[in-house]
Order: sequence, then structure tokens, then C-alpha cells
Amino acid sequence: MDQFERLSQLPLRDDLRGQHPYGAPQLDVPILLNVNENTFGVPLDAKEAILKAVADELDGLNRYPDREFTELRRALAAYLGHGLVAENIWAANGSNEVLQQLLQAFGGPGRIAMGFPPTYSMYPLLASGTGTAYAAGVRGAGFSLSAQSAGEQVQALAPNVVFLCSPNNPTGTVLGLDVVEAVYEAGEASSAIVIVDEAYAEFAHAGTPSALNLLEGRPRLVVSRTMSKAFALAGARVGYLASAPEVTDAIRLVRLPYHLSAITQATAVAALRNSDALLANVEAIKVQRDRIVDELGQMGLRPAPSDSNFVLFGGMADPSSVWEKLLADGVLIRDVGIPGHLRVTAGTEAETSAFLNGMRDILAK
Amino acid sequence: MDQFERLSQLPLRDDLRGQHPYGAPQLDVPILLNVNENTFGVPLDAKEAILKAVADELDGLNRYPDREFTELRRALAAYLGHGLVAENIWAANGSNEVLQQLLQAFGGPGRIAMGFPPTYSMYPLLASGTGTAYAAGVRGAGFSLSAQSAGEQVQALAPNVVFLCSPNNPTGTVLGLDVVEAVYEAGEASSAIVIVDEAYAEFAHAGTPSALNLLEGRPRLVVSRTMSKAFALAGARVGYLASAPEVTDAIRLVRLPYHLSAITQATAVAALRNSDALLANVEAIKVQRDRIVDELGQMGLRPAPSDSNFVLFGGMADPSSVWEKLLADGVLIRDVGIPGHLRVTAGTEAETSAFLNGMRDILAK
Repeated sequence: MDQFERLSQLPLRDDLRGQHPYGAPQLDVPILLNVNENTFGVPLDAKEAILKAVADELDGLNRYPDREFTELRRALAAYLGHGLVAENIWAANGSNEVLQQLLQAFGGPGRIAMGFPPTYSMYPLLASGTGTAYAAGVRGAGFSLSAQSAGEQVQALAPNVVFLCSPNNPTGTVLGLDVVEAVYEAGEASSAIVIVDEAYAEFAHAGTPSALNLLEGRPRLVVSRTMSKAFALAGARVGYLASAPEVTDAIRLVRLPYHLSAITQATAVAALRNSDALLANVEAIKVQRDRIVDELGQMGLRPAPSDSNFVLFGGMADPSSVWEKLLADGVLIRDVGIPGHLRVTAGTEAETSAFLNGMRDILAK
Repeated sequence: MDQFERLSQLPLRDDLRGQHPYGAPQLDVPILLNVNENTFGVPLDAKEAILKAVADELDGLNRYPDREFTELRRALAAYLGHGLVAENIWAANGSNEVLQQLLQAFGGPGRIAMGFPPTYSMYPLLASGTGTAYAAGVRGAGFSLSAQSAGEQVQALAPNVVFLCSPNNPTGTVLGLDVVEAVYEAGEASSAIVIVDEAYAEFAHAGTPSALNLLEGRPRLVVSRTMSKAFALAGARVGYLASAPEVTDAIRLVRLPYHLSAITQATAVAALRNSDALLANVEAIKVQRDRIVDELGQMGLRPAPSDSNFVLFGGMADPSSVWEKLLADGVLIRDVGIPGHLRVTAGTEAETSAFLNGMRDILAK
């Protein structure tokens, strides 16, 4: 009896039968441009501050952590600005857990969450994991989503939770705030919680407004963020949200007590106190991102415009062959399951050059 | 409009309306004997090892952590013994998350989880958070649970998941393995996952067998453990389980990807490599635990026999007055909601003396 036969004999939930676990391949390759990490790493000053903060926690590590992670919520509010205070902030072990908690509070059996694919592939999985139905809206040409179309689709479906990802993963494109406003208004009838997932917000071109500007007066609006990308802390697992205080009160009813370790809290606070150093590489990443869009376009491929730290591109006859040849060259990028397309993370200048040179070689053959 | 009125206007899940968040009060009191922490703290050697392990992770903190936390699973298997290997182990941010993942995989809408109160108060909350119905079994005199009674109740209810807590929180009493065997056999008809929660196992009297001895040949049996108690790492949030490998495969279908941070993994591995130092205080805690049972009995109170690091005791006319007078003395213990009873954690010798002297003073008045 093999592993899958044994699994099939367990009393697994019916909707999980035959499924495979989520996850990009974790391969040992020299240049990793597959999961939109910040490849610059953590600056020395920030590392020293984090280590000191962790050291300060060790004496009390036998005690449960501050269940309210008040210092971290204050630091996140100060980072976001927009007049936000600790009461507007919630955090968890990665934005996936933040989104799961929102679905536990506002989704669940008999309720519907809605997303607009291609978008972050965890949304339907998080819905499934919380017993929430998931409905896929549609986008227009070039993965676009207009205020009118999004509003009409939300009005027609009357979902309980709407996910808007901006900049959108895996396309990289940003949504106008008019789309968020239209979806929020259209969700009034079904009292929908509207979640704007801004995991990549720090990489947007100058002048791109955040949905944080819309929070005032909109108690059903939630903006989620992460420290995994711009802050270069994917390994520390810190996601967070900003919302009306009553949304965080709702999450308190479903969150696991003490879900954020004392060390995670200390790491995140130390990082936020060193945000200038940590975010210093964001501009360099944006330069490489724009370079990828430019150069792939010059190669005759079709890169999507990007406000994130990655670029989705089409125009290849055989994307899986391109993916494999890059891997053979020591460059790992991502096949996100969109026919004819691949996604690449903007790395350092050297990593980006290795990717672009690899692409030129492949296209020349 | 106050906080609760604002919350009531949000589209909260119906079963959450009117609920209050779980959690013991987090008060700033000199002697904290309320949440069954290991009050001895983390020994210096272990602290240094943890700090070094965290320092080694900082260079790669911009990368997502090992999603399979293989090194940690190996270290946990080696700690547990019983011929277990990494494939038998799963871990998460506290045993609450481990239990939540089990309910996501094997519980959910239309399914029933069963516990035997008084027991760990998170079980019904975890069930609610995953849309699982929760049924309460009954115990006999003195919070006892016999193999025959437990087996008959499971047979009659046909639950999908059964929680057996041993040593039981908040009573402190251990279950015989005959109870686990009877429940497992009675759960055959409903193909029930049987979870033996051994959060306090390391504090059991010498010779008390673990349900780990029963895993072989029982694919529906799960033993959950934590590093929060004996390992004195409540602040680090590491819970884990041992089971047949197919149970961990099932959890992979519901777990959030990268749910364990690189720092959490490194902290736990370093702690396990220093388990001798970390567990050195367990014997001292057991001495204080037995002392509490003895001395409270001598005071004319009714302490329950305990194989954990806490003691539940009755025999007071007015427990809430006792709780308040102890708090005024700077000693915080726990009212777990069992009429006529309070629960106290076994601390250091000095902390335990402060509690016992306080009790003598209160009873003398």
C-alpha cells in the first residue's frame, strides 16, 4: 500500500480527497527568482537589531507572549501612517493566516468568497480550508478589471467576502482605487467584507495610491500587507492588516490565542524600527523590474506592466521548455499555470542579468 | 456607538455573534501561576544555543522557510523515541494550531468532534472555528473516565474526531492507555480520528505510559505535544504531533504554506539539542506539584491527583474570594469555571511557598 492509498483510507474531509498540497517547488538552485522574495537579503544593521531584540526575549521565553502584540501593532500603524493607530491593526504568521482569520470570521459554511483570477492562488485554498464557497469573477483583455465590471459582478453574485489583489499576483498589475470604491459600494447589499491584498504595495510606481486612503468611513474595507516582500522577511512570517477597529475585534473571536510568538513580535518590531535600511533596496528592485519589462519587450515577448517585484510575461511558443532551460542554467522562475506565460521575480542586477541573458540565449536558439 | 455595537454591525458569522474572545487575563503580578507555564525559565546554555541558531538564520531571512521543516521534524522524532521518524511528525505555531489543522482535515461542516469536559477549553472553540459540531461526553465521579464509559459514549455518538487530554487540563489526571484503546476501537465504526493531547506528559509520575506506545498499527491515532510546558518555551509557540505518516500527508492539504517561520524552526531545533538542560527543572516542578497536593490536603481542601504541572483543588466555600485574596497578595492563579474549584500551576519552591502560605492565611481568617 503506497502513501496515497494509505491517505485515502483515512476519514479525510470529502472536498480534500484527491487534492495535492499547495506549494512552489523548493529546489536548490543558484538563482531563485520563483517566489517573489526580496533577493537583496536583510541589511547588516537590521540583522543586528533583530538579533538584539530576540536576545532580549529569551529570559521571558517560558512565558506566553503578549496575546495582543500591542507594541507590534503600534509599530505597524506608525509605519503605515494615514492616521492609523494600534486598534486599526492586526497581524499573524504571514498574510495567509490573516486572510484565513478573516474568512473564519466573515466566511464559512453557507457563505461565498469571490476573487478575480488570475490572482493569488491561495484565495480558493483558504476558502476551502474554512468551508467557504469560492466564486471566480472574470477580467477583461490583458487581465484588466474595470470599476464597472467589478462592481457589476459583485452586485450580481452578492458575495460575503471579496478579494482584490493590488498589485495583483501573478500579473503584477495595480487596480485603480475606483475599482475598490465600486466593489465596496456594490458589496453594500450583501454586506461584503472587501479585502485589498497589497502584499506588493511598496514596489508600485511613485504616485500609486494605496487603498489605505479609503479606510476612513468604510468599516467593511480591509487592507492586507506583508513583511515578506519589501521588508525582505519572508522567513519571519509576518503579515498584517489595517481596518476599522471592529474588524480586529471580530478576528479576536477566531484567532488562536498567542498565535504570534514573542520572537516573531520582537523580530518584526526591530525590523520596523529599521525600516529605512530594510526598504533601501526597494528602489533597486523596481529598477530591475522595469528593466525586465523593457528587455523582455525588446526580445519580442509580452511582459505585463508591473507595479510589483515580479513580471508576468507571455509570447513564448513553449513556456515549459523555457522554464526547463532556465533551470538548467541555474535560474528558477515560476510557471503559475497561465497558458503561454511564466513569472519571474526581479532580483539583484546580477541575478536579473543572468535571467535576461538566459532568455536571450534560449530565444536565439 | 461603542465597540460592541460597531462589531454587531459587521457581517460576522452567525455563530460568533455575542461571543467574547478566549483568554486568561494577562495581568502584571509578581507570581504568575495561572497558565501552567514553566516558571523556572530557560537555562543559560539553552538561551545561548537558541540565540546562535537564530543568528544563523538571519542571512537567509529574506527567503521563505523550509516548508517541510525537515530538520525540526527529525529532532522531534529523535526526542520522542518509540521508533518514530520525521515522517511521523508534524508541528505548528502551538498545539492549538496543530489541533486546528487536524479539525480542518478531518472535521468541518457536517462532522462532529467530541471531548470529555472538564477538559481543555480550546476544543469547542477550535471546533467552532472550523465549522465542526462539538459534543460533550460525560465523566464519572472525581472527573474520572473509564475505558468502558468512554468507549460506550464514542460508540453511541459516532464522532469523527475525539479529543482525549492526558494528563487532563484542568483536572491534572492521567488517562489509562486502556481508555485510549477502548475509544480507538469504539471509533472504528465512525472512522474517528482519536487525538490524545499529551501537552503535560513530561510531568507525569514515573512509569506513566504515553499513548505513543499505541501508535503502531493505529493509523487513526494522533498524539499531540507541546514545547510550551516542560521545555519552558511558551513564548516560542511550538506544538507538534506524532502519528502515522498519512495523517501528516492529510494536514499538508490544509496547512498554510510556510506556516512555521525559519526562526521558530531554528529555536525549536536548538532547544531540542539542549533538551537535557531544558528538562532539568521538570523533576523540581514535580516535587512542588506533589507538595501542593499534600499541603492543600492537609489544609482540608480537596486537590485532584495530578500528573501535570498544576493542581485543581476544591473544598472552598467561596473560590472567587480566595482567587481575589491571592491576587491581592501578588499571586495569580486561575478560575477555570468549575464551580467550587481553582487551579494553580506548580512554580519554583519560593513561588509555591508564597501560594501555599497565602492559602493558609486565607483559610485561617
